[in-house]
Amino acid sequence: MDKIKVSLLGATGMVGQKMIKLLADHPYIELVKLSASDSRIGKKYSETVKWIENGSIPEKFRDMKLVSTSPEDNKDVDYVLSALPPEAAEPVELKLVKNGINVISNASPYRLSKDIPLINPEINFEHLRILEGKDTKFVKNPNCTSAIMAMPLVKLLGFDYDRISLVSMQAISGAGFSGLPYMSIDDNIIPYIHGEEEKIPAEISKMYGTVQDGKINGKNIRMSVTSVRVPVKVGHMGVLNMEIKKGVDVEELIKNLNNFSPLKGFNGLYNAPAHPIVVHNEADRPQNAIDTYNGMEVHVGRISYTDRNLRMVILGNNLVRGAAGITILTLELMEQMKL
Amino acid sequence: MDKIKVSLLGATGMVGQKMIKLLADHPYIELVKLSASDSRIGKKYSETVKWIENGSIPEKFRDMKLVSTSPEDNKDVDYVLSALPPEAAEPVELKLVKNGINVISNASPYRLSKDIPLINPEINFEHLRILEGKDTKFVKNPNCTSAIMAMPLVKLLGFDYDRISLVSMQAISGAGFSGLPYMSIDDNIIPYIHGEEEKIPAEISKMYGTVQDGKINGKNIRMSVTSVRVPVKVGHMGVLNMEIKKGVDVEELIKNLNNFSPLKGFNGLYNAPAHPIVVHNEADRPQNAIDTYNGMEVHVGRISYTDRNLRMVILGNNLVRGAAGITILTLELMEQMKL
Amino acid sequence: MDKIKVSLLGATGMVGQKMIKLLADHPYIELVKLSASDSRIGKKYSETVKWIENGSIPEKFRDMKLVSTSPEDNKDVDYVLSALPPEAAEPVELKLVKNGINVISNASPYRLSKDIPLINPEINFEHLRILEGKDTKFVKNPNCTSAIMAMPLVKLLGFDYDRISLVSMQAISGAGFSGLPYMSIDDNIIPYIHGEEEKIPAEISKMYGTVQDGKINGKNIRMSVTSVRVPVKVGHMGVLNMEIKKGVDVEELIKNLNNFSPLKGFNGLYNAPAHPIVVHNEADRPQNAIDTYNGMEVHVGRISYTDRNLRMVILGNNLVRGAAGITILTLELMEQMKL
Amino acid sequence: MDKIKVSLLGATGMVGQKMIKLLADHPYIELVKLSASDSRIGKKYSETVKWIENGSIPEKFRDMKLVSTSPEDNKDVDYVLSALPPEAAEPVELKLVKNGINVISNASPYRLSKDIPLINPEINFEHLRILEGKDTKFVKNPNCTSAIMAMPLVKLLGFDYDRISLVSMQAISGAGFSGLPYMSIDDNIIPYIHGEEEKIPAEISKMYGTVQDGKINGKNIRMSVTSVRVPVKVGHMGVLNMEIKKGVDVEELIKNLNNFSPLKGFNGLYNAPAHPIVVHNEADRPQNAIDTYNGMEVHVGRISYTDRNLRMVILGNNLVRGAAGITILTLELMEQMKL
Repeated sequence: MDKIKVSLLGATGMVGQKMIKLLADHPYIELVKLSASDSRIGKKYSETVKWIENGSIPEKFRDMKLVSTSPEDNKDVDYVLSALPPEAAEPVELKLVKNGINVISNASPYRLSKDIPLINPEINFEHLRILEGKDTKFVKNPNCTSAIMAMPLVKLLGFDYDRISLVSMQAISGAGFSGLPYMSIDDNIIPYIHGEEEKIPAEISKMYGTVQDGKINGKNIRMSVTSVRVPVKVGHMGVLNMEIKKGVDVEELIKNLNNFSPLKGFNGLYNAPAHPIVVHNEADRPQNAIDTYNGMEVHVGRISYTDRNLRMVILGNNLVRGAAGITILTLELMEQMKL
Repeated sequence: MDKIKVSLLGATGMVGQKMIKLLADHPYIELVKLSASDSRIGKKYSETVKWIENGSIPEKFRDMKLVSTSPEDNKDVDYVLSALPPEAAEPVELKLVKNGINVISNASPYRLSKDIPLINPEINFEHLRILEGKDTKFVKNPNCTSAIMAMPLVKLLGFDYDRISLVSMQAISGAGFSGLPYMSIDDNIIPYIHGEEEKIPAEISKMYGTVQDGKINGKNIRMSVTSVRVPVKVGHMGVLNMEIKKGVDVEELIKNLNNFSPLKGFNGLYNAPAHPIVVHNEADRPQNAIDTYNGMEVHVGRISYTDRNLRMVILGNNLVRGAAGITILTLELMEQMKL
Repeated sequence: MDKIKVSLLGATGMVGQKMIKLLADHPYIELVKLSASDSRIGKKYSETVKWIENGSIPEKFRDMKLVSTSPEDNKDVDYVLSALPPEAAEPVELKLVKNGINVISNASPYRLSKDIPLINPEINFEHLRILEGKDTKFVKNPNCTSAIMAMPLVKLLGFDYDRISLVSMQAISGAGFSGLPYMSIDDNIIPYIHGEEEKIPAEISKMYGTVQDGKINGKNIRMSVTSVRVPVKVGHMGVLNMEIKKGVDVEELIKNLNNFSPLKGFNGLYNAPAHPIVVHNEADRPQNAIDTYNGMEVHVGRISYTDRNLRMVILGNNLVRGAAGITILTLELMEQMKL
Repeated sequence: MDKIKVSLLGATGMVGQKMIKLLADHPYIELVKLSASDSRIGKKYSETVKWIENGSIPEKFRDMKLVSTSPEDNKDVDYVLSALPPEAAEPVELKLVKNGINVISNASPYRLSKDIPLINPEINFEHLRILEGKDTKFVKNPNCTSAIMAMPLVKLLGFDYDRISLVSMQAISGAGFSGLPYMSIDDNIIPYIHGEEEKIPAEISKMYGTVQDGKINGKNIRMSVTSVRVPVKVGHMGVLNMEIKKGVDVEELIKNLNNFSPLKGFNGLYNAPAHPIVVHNEADRPQNAIDTYNGMEVHVGRISYTDRNLRMVILGNNLVRGAAGITILTLELMEQMKL
């Protein structure tokens, strides 16, 4: 089979670097073009990137020269993957799509458009079917926190609950490499992240939405979110409390979470974890320092049901499950679904 | 007036050092004895303490020789203040009290005994009156997190609420100087603190309890707590969510919190802040790095009332409001109340 | 006596904030104007500063409206103190001086000009005398690392040494509040600081220079410097090794360092520490976390003389001894010296 | 070929975990026994270890039951690898050797014994030949800092130098998982590490020593070391200054360092890096956060020769090049050398 050829927008950022790492040895996706902001065009990747991923830049990308984000420079690939920051993303991605180029993007603009799928693969890969028959495919991935926190909800939203209360403690890498000065966040908690508390319920609502006439209608979810920035580098952790009237069988719930594996019928999903949700029984898990290495898994712990309150702690790697990993898994799925 | 003479148990620990700092220049409390574990008896304070408070050891305590925690060594003071760790505290404090020595203690044993006041001064100084007429006075201060989180509840418990959901993000100093190895908590969140989640509701219940026949009956409070350890040194922050049926006037609530000042009728409360609760309007406050310096204040921010959910962020200095400061303020109050 | 009226350039930065703190209650220097970059002019200080110093903004500056850095806006003060960043400083300070306004500045431009004193007060206050009779006074303070590391050299440069080798481990605040992203320096050492390794020997040479015909000629100092950035917030630490042919009496040296107190003949030096150099005998001192609180002292430890190598560890507060504190002490000295 | 069977002493510590990781898929070394302190004997590895390496415990070791460190429990393996702490190591290792069991150890006791090779493979694998013909083989690996800093000296000790001055900035993992409380070292530098400054020159001297009559005589090396603890988790960095009378050709030196590859004649050295020394040309490298991933390489940067002073920055992974990696590479070499 011919490899799927992709170009990568925003190749020098943290998410871009993670994509390069995940694609370096991919069996059937070939990263053939790297693009970045105008000032970098024409430069070798190794000369212009500030590489921070562990290990060296994969050999084949070291000397690749950066191209622009224009349709002209990206027209001969099968897909453009976008790791652009939001302001840059909006005009660039739209222009590509209008020029008939397929785009899968991590950036926030258009995430809530009803006719653009917002894919967190295990949750709503079926939403990709609204693209069937379309000449140009435009797909979005959710915000890092939404992608992680949405996962265990798959087994919770069926309960007759009153409200979900979520406190998300988010890693600094979520703000980008230069997002937070050391002096502002070391030994500190900043109890506010601009825009975050609105995005999370809205995006989760859409992920769990239903398709009607090619459009996605969000599910009604009652959720209060408080997002704070904590001094850790990688891993967004959430504490979820959920008022549930009827009794919850915790053992059953744990089994259901551990067994959740909706993609197992597919072959060739190189980035799909065998168990997308991993439940920990140890009281002091999950922890960022231990459980964010296998990036696509979402880790859950401290599950209890007391006095009608279901509580759990949720943790995921914001750069992998929250960004680069789901973009690539989305493309793998599109290939396997023959979209 | 003669100064109140006190001895300090656990003088070399973090809370002990903070007490020494707060008492160094106290106008009417004189710290005359320092005691610590057996291995330190007879040594000069400056030779055996690992001093970590900013600035040097106050001159008058440098050469003070440590005594034991026995009644014999502490009988000629007016009060013994205890900053002992819980295991050490239980037998020592009880023995002192049985020998007729007054004790005000930070340690957890007996905090929930109905005939021992658990004092967070602004909240329940009236509970001290159950000591009236007693020959020996034994008073407890609450756990650091309970002391801080209880404060704004003074204006919240009157609402017709369904449940309080609290996520407490607690500083490393709360576990003691050597409580957590760097390798275990740097760049990490540990979503569990042994014993903490039970203590907080129980102690807050008692603080807001009512006195009957010399005993304190806890108030019925419906509260779910999740406590996590975060990599900050000082300052426990809580995110509180509270389901409230009837509308809440946020402006009114802010005013009530800022104006809360129940001790203003007293003179000579050297450690009582003019405003025990400080409400911040900036979206990104309170922050550990900025707001834990004036230690006795409890800082509140991000107050909102949306879809019947009242949310706020609460922050306090766990070593001052959560420990050393309230011990001393309790003694100041006992003096002013002529107990 | 009338107070000395000063304005402060760069009032919102870290050094500016430290100056405000040090001047808030100064007995004879009155800070009457705050200035900052154009976008802030006309705003109240409390509305435009991101205050990070412990405690609140001193009351009297909260509502002070920022003025520009122009001569017009700063002409009616006795001195302008400058905490501007280097690029901004060069044209602004020169313009003020050309308009007859006295300037004492922390910024790097002109630090090496032979007719402008570069003052580290205890080391070379006598250099201020070259200003005698001048209508307008323009004084520079050294770079933060130079100011700290220069101090113990006062007792070392007299030895018959071959070379001074200095490794400086510098705190993040030295790069300014936003100088380093958390992701770049947390859990990391960056073994390079642009421009630093040249500045330190050059500035120390000038501080120890001699005056001839109103000009300062640098002392010949043989010094190799390696500067690295380490993940601490405050405090620059240096490890100094010095090849000395003739025997060094370490006890004598320690005594000389501890007794160094060249300003004791002056009165009214509010920011002059009694002991500008403090020698620690404990093997594990000085430490940033313990010894940078009393900001003007330079702390020295681990002094040894082995196999003709003199070694010591040097530590100082880069924002106080390295910046704000010496600016103010310089002004105090100029007043006492009637310059 | 039959696999070499090894047991591992100290299997639950940080170095032990790293060894398990490196041996999990080794082509010809089979880890068949894990041992630890008495309290853990008989327990499953996964139940008693606090696993902190990235990723999960390799499957085959999860249920392995821990045995004691006694000769009886370790007699049927080809080699015992020891990652014990020093106090525990001394009696245990000696007893094993006396009972005819081969031991390769990371622990400090006996490192300086003249008849026990102290192996940093690329530097002095030839020292292993003194074991030829011995019934029982007892080999030591150097201290983590010695192992790293010794590497570039292979191309420096030939110069006519006057003195090597080394400042080592050492990571917290070097003190073991629980070696340093967070409160003691976060945001701090501790300018002292017990015993370290003596070990480094002594061990490097022995590594570069010559063999005579089956004994190793240390090379005369003039070296002054200052070791400080810095708040980073992994990676010991050194700044080396070396007074060299005759001119040094820096370009030539860089080439020599990069080309150093003394083990290339061997096959089957699974843990030998192609380039044991990697020279960086970028001014801001090497960095802990970027360059400690490929654990066996020693990274060198900032090489300059100015005014007769050769300066370089040296960095290595203290758990791999400094411990677990060289133990395994030593065993690989012994196998290939047919010792």
